[in-house]
Amino acid sequence: MTALGRIVCVTIVAEALLERRLVEDLARCGAQGWTAMVGHGHGPGHHGVSGFEGGNVRIETLVGHETADRIWAILERDYFPNYAVTAWAYDANVARVARYGDARADG
Amino acid sequence: MTALGRIVCVTIVAEALLERRLVEDLARCGAQGWTAMVGHGHGPGHHGVSGFEGGNVRIETLVGHETADRIWAILERDYFPNYAVTAWAYDANVARVARYGDARADG
Amino acid sequence: MTALGRIVCVTIVAEALLERRLVEDLARCGAQGWTAMVGHGHGPGHHGVSGFEGGNVRIETLVGHETADRIWAILERDYFPNYAVTAWAYDANVARVARYGDARADG
Repeated sequence: MTALGRIVCVTIVAEALLERRLVEDLARCGAQGWTAMVGHGHGPGHHGVSGFEGGNVRIETLVGHETADRIWAILERDYFPNYAVTAWAYDANVARVARYGDARADG
Repeated sequence: MTALGRIVCVTIVAEALLERRLVEDLARCGAQGWTAMVGHGHGPGHHGVSGFEGGNVRIETLVGHETADRIWAILERDYFPNYAVTAWAYDANVARVARYGDARADG
Repeated sequence: MTALGRIVCVTIVAEALLERRLVEDLARCGAQGWTAMVGHGHGPGHHGVSGFEGGNVRIETLVGHETADRIWAILERDYFPNYAVTAWAYDANVARVARYGDARADG
């Protein structure tokens, strides 16, 4: 049976132009990796679809709880007041949990 | 520490042709936003990959529990009997939970 | 009220070249369907972004717990030692849970 550990998956959706900056901020917060995909849509509080329709990016990163807290703090300070950014987080299981920085092994 | 609230992330995968109709139904159910991406694949009960290979859409929306219930009801009544649609839901954390309609703040 | 059942969503991110092999392995493990999307990024332990930048694939599959265990075993034996593969799993709710193989209905 594969030993699994608990981790947080943080997903961020933003204008595609913000991808590089977001990824650099994720790395500074302690994230060890990410996956980015192209998407479109609109979010709560955004004024119509068009502002987002130019293309957005959906970035996922698997991190420990402390790194996730740091990511939320950066989003709240630098992104939410200034950009149409949506983010959510959920707990997930991974193998080889030690690879994800401060993630906790469940035993 | 960022104050997080609980929300439901509903993901729907369907033929790309259904995107506009699905998005309109999500809005009618109370969803405040969504993210859509292009994908491919095949689902349980679908007859081979080819029917889906024309391209499908993966739509995510963050909603409160009551909105999620309304979305499930619409999927069950209008989509599941007629189309190759796959959907799943899970609980997630968000900042600024009040933006998501009937979502509940966890305090 | 729609009757929902519990299932596992397994997400795998890998080099795009591995998609066909991964999908065949998922089917052998008992997965009834999957969704694949194109992405880019880099993962923990990968040596720079460039190795991944040629394009990767993000595959999601909804399966029962026994199938998820088989998928983890295959990943651990055949993929993790040899490829830059990231995978995570979380519990989700679905309608018509019997369609997903060994998934358990919650009642």
